[in-house]
Amino acid sequence: MPTDDTERAITLGANSYGKSGVRLVHVVRDSPRHDLRDLTVHTALAGDLDATHYRGDNTGVLPTDSQKHTVYAFAREGIGSIEGFAERLARHFADTAPAIRSARVRVEEHPWRRTGEHSFARGDGGELRTAEAAYGDGAVRFTAGVRDLLLLNTTGSAFGGFLTDRYTTLPETEDRILATAVDAAWTYETTGDDAWFDASFAAARAALLEAFADTYSLSLQQTLYAVGERILRAVPETGEVRLSLPNRHHYLYDLEPFGLDNPGLVFQAGDLPYGLIEGTVRREAP
Amino acid sequence: MPTDDTERAITLGANSYGKSGVRLVHVVRDSPRHDLRDLTVHTALAGDLDATHYRGDNTGVLPTDSQKHTVYAFAREGIGSIEGFAERLARHFADTAPAIRSARVRVEEHPWRRTGEHSFARGDGGELRTAEAAYGDGAVRFTAGVRDLLLLNTTGSAFGGFLTDRYTTLPETEDRILATAVDAAWTYETTGDDAWFDASFAAARAALLEAFADTYSLSLQQTLYAVGERILRAVPETGEVRLSLPNRHHYLYDLEPFGLDNPGLVFQAGDLPYGLIEGTVRREAP
Amino acid sequence: MPTDDTERAITLGANSYGKSGVRLVHVVRDSPRHDLRDLTVHTALAGDLDATHYRGDNTGVLPTDSQKHTVYAFAREGIGSIEGFAERLARHFADTAPAIRSARVRVEEHPWRRTGEHSFARGDGGELRTAEAAYGDGAVRFTAGVRDLLLLNTTGSAFGGFLTDRYTTLPETEDRILATAVDAAWTYETTGDDAWFDASFAAARAALLEAFADTYSLSLQQTLYAVGERILRAVPETGEVRLSLPNRHHYLYDLEPFGLDNPGLVFQAGDLPYGLIEGTVRREAP
Amino acid sequence: MPTDDTERAITLGANSYGKSGVRLVHVVRDSPRHDLRDLTVHTALAGDLDATHYRGDNTGVLPTDSQKHTVYAFAREGIGSIEGFAERLARHFADTAPAIRSARVRVEEHPWRRTGEHSFARGDGGELRTAEAAYGDGAVRFTAGVRDLLLLNTTGSAFGGFLTDRYTTLPETEDRILATAVDAAWTYETTGDDAWFDASFAAARAALLEAFADTYSLSLQQTLYAVGERILRAVPETGEVRLSLPNRHHYLYDLEPFGLDNPGLVFQAGDLPYGLIEGTVRREAP
Repeated sequence: MPTDDTERAITLGANSYGKSGVRLVHVVRDSPRHDLRDLTVHTALAGDLDATHYRGDNTGVLPTDSQKHTVYAFAREGIGSIEGFAERLARHFADTAPAIRSARVRVEEHPWRRTGEHSFARGDGGELRTAEAAYGDGAVRFTAGVRDLLLLNTTGSAFGGFLTDRYTTLPETEDRILATAVDAAWTYETTGDDAWFDASFAAARAALLEAFADTYSLSLQQTLYAVGERILRAVPETGEVRLSLPNRHHYLYDLEPFGLDNPGLVFQAGDLPYGLIEGTVRREAP
Repeated sequence: MPTDDTERAITLGANSYGKSGVRLVHVVRDSPRHDLRDLTVHTALAGDLDATHYRGDNTGVLPTDSQKHTVYAFAREGIGSIEGFAERLARHFADTAPAIRSARVRVEEHPWRRTGEHSFARGDGGELRTAEAAYGDGAVRFTAGVRDLLLLNTTGSAFGGFLTDRYTTLPETEDRILATAVDAAWTYETTGDDAWFDASFAAARAALLEAFADTYSLSLQQTLYAVGERILRAVPETGEVRLSLPNRHHYLYDLEPFGLDNPGLVFQAGDLPYGLIEGTVRREAP
Repeated sequence: MPTDDTERAITLGANSYGKSGVRLVHVVRDSPRHDLRDLTVHTALAGDLDATHYRGDNTGVLPTDSQKHTVYAFAREGIGSIEGFAERLARHFADTAPAIRSARVRVEEHPWRRTGEHSFARGDGGELRTAEAAYGDGAVRFTAGVRDLLLLNTTGSAFGGFLTDRYTTLPETEDRILATAVDAAWTYETTGDDAWFDASFAAARAALLEAFADTYSLSLQQTLYAVGERILRAVPETGEVRLSLPNRHHYLYDLEPFGLDNPGLVFQAGDLPYGLIEGTVRREAP
Repeated sequence: MPTDDTERAITLGANSYGKSGVRLVHVVRDSPRHDLRDLTVHTALAGDLDATHYRGDNTGVLPTDSQKHTVYAFAREGIGSIEGFAERLARHFADTAPAIRSARVRVEEHPWRRTGEHSFARGDGGELRTAEAAYGDGAVRFTAGVRDLLLLNTTGSAFGGFLTDRYTTLPETEDRILATAVDAAWTYETTGDDAWFDASFAAARAALLEAFADTYSLSLQQTLYAVGERILRAVPETGEVRLSLPNRHHYLYDLEPFGLDNPGLVFQAGDLPYGLIEGTVRREAP
């Protein structure tokens, strides 16, 4: 309970509650050729929750169990784009009761590829498609992206001309492997129907892959910017792109002690530590 | 490269770069009774990095390889508190060159318990002690905390009186298991020496454990607030406490089909999905 | 040191030593269109190692560090099939010194798919191709397989007519989702060149996918046998197939409390616990 | 279905089925001071299962769902030692129906330490206590052990005098950090009551910790043997000890480029690759 502490009261700050890790699989069986969607859904609600935090009065708390049921019940009507599914859930939660002021719903889609009329194998290297809809004060904001998209260039990457200090021993290189696990999220400044969200995602992802493949990289930062810029140009309705690019180092293995040369053939893939390059690329305010 | 896009330019937003997952073990051998510290360090630098993002001009970039070396080299002089170690590194990075404006260093400490004069076993259930020092514009800000601290109460927890809607089927309960994996981080509004940081951490952690154990919980939100408030009272120099409390559900197993009662004895520990309660408790501005 | 213990001596039994998790990336750059191989290699040597176990006399021990170097040095000459690469390493280790009597080398290949002349994205859903060569007493034995191959059928799977006891409440079902993460390994009773190993692997994997897709499954055991049998038929040189099939349960979500039907559309993907079906299918001895 | 394949029939080999990852929490509330047990249980049944594999005839298959229920139902009567709990389950399953010939039940116990009358924090560094009871043909065999027990010695470990070949560059060392994650399992040649199993486990674990701490190690193999021998001596009813000891390398960090010495103070904890030493120590047959 908030009380005076001689001079400065202790109070509740920002807070939310929800259900994480709701694992939902949806099958469409209206023809012999079934369709499959595999999602993980996370919900987070906020509102006036002073009473439950201070006194355990739960009048304004919608159980996270009910939130879970809602996700499955809404799936009964179909999924469509994950952005649209997230929006329908977020709007529903925020409109459930006055005590709930805003809702944020995140969805991750696990890809499957078809191997038969009703058979599937997990697809696309473990990469996830992500979407978030945040609803509050009558407005909805969308974010879409990819996570754990592993990319690697076997050449076309250099790193030199950097700042040096007494702890610098790294030699400059004109040819290295560049590898990363892309975590990207872009905002939409508008909304659309399921087809528009799916097409925008596909265009943004394709731009990302192309920018990574065709940028001659003088640093991973330059690649980051190129990727972000390309996405913003490919999908004019995007507002900003946040990118987190771990630098998965590949070390040219020293074979000289064994009487062998190694002209860029044999590498040790490093694990820990890794470089981490993070940044935002944005369209300036109108 | 930023260019006009008919009306709205594309530019670089917030960004940083550093080394993550630097695994450092430090041994003190100045007596037969050795001391052991086991840390994972993450660095992140920021500054004027337009040139590297736009053109691959790395003049202002300190290689993350150099940052890694620095972590090990600084450890040569000893660790002390992880808050102090993080601060020394953050100040050093930010003072290396004018191109580096600020630095954030996070440290996680893996606990070991002594089993002999120079022998140790991993301790304390996998829980980590964490610290962060962020330095920039001549000021340093400290955060300390714990992560993956697993706590469980076998009674003293209820959940009822909540909001219900058409998707609510959860019965009220007056006696449930309450289990969580605490992720807590608190800010310090002042600084101190190593002894002060260690003592403050110990006091905050003890307050956390006590609040969890002795709060009769009407909701996990109430427990969250109680924990945050107790930490703020135990260590007056703290400013705010951020808490992330996954609700690790334990379901009373229905044994009735087998002719058995289950008066709160046998539970199924759930995995996915889990509730997630997040919130901040803060001391009001002076 | 082995000593008499009144009646029964204590001695060393089976043992081995090696390097695990050697992360090797190999690039072929002899044309603008690069090729990429990404492997994890594990070595294990055995021999007369009593002296090192009893007295720390390491005369017969080849350091695991040397084993690691060997993996990278051998890669300098190219990889070929992972079975062939494992064999060359296993033969080399066993022939290094008389103290080494046998060697077992396991290789896992991480798939990448091409996105450009020298650009790649991680491929095929995280599934690994595996191979093992075990060399000793002048003979080499080969095993090949896949791991973490996620498969799912949206129909064509039933489970009924099972044994029931007082703890059985499971209803029979004529239509369920069948999902698993295949871990399969088959032996070869012969050897071959790189092209043969690659073709045999491709044929076995294709047989596996087809058997899973076109078997109407009355139990996961039946699917297991069908998969094993199909692999043995597709590749006559195989001797036996070991299969480990976790049953990744998908529960039809009960939407009735919310006034909705659920005719096989909305499922909750379970996590823990899971069924585990394991078995071997083999060609009888000649 | 097994059929002749010109010359060699294809048939079913060894197989089993069961439920893995059954997460069971048991609370004893018969006084204000509650007791807590946290287990993960895995079951595996075997028998004459040709019909289900060949034809999907499930007459002899006890659903894994029933096996799960049985675990929870048996817990209603209390746990006792995990060896005894595993035995009761294994005997029950094997006696359920003639079609079930044998059963193997593995149990892992997750440790908690008390922080209040009914409050607990996860204990002991993530280490697990394990037990297995395998019942068949009227006999039960017991295995007990620990997993993920992280141990580290800051001195008292050397490695030299080893075999060298053209790929050997490793220098000999007289003082290194020795760190491992112990996976140990020992058989019992007798049975006992719960108190005996608990006492035997405690004695074996203490012997393991002591042997690791007080063995001056000339190789990790020597440590392995010393640990195994000490366990066999400490608990005379044990028959053999299987040990898997990953060598978690700690590399002395080279600080010379920065003008600093490093007399055994600052180490980089390695991740991949790691050495892997595996072996069995056994009491000879009577």
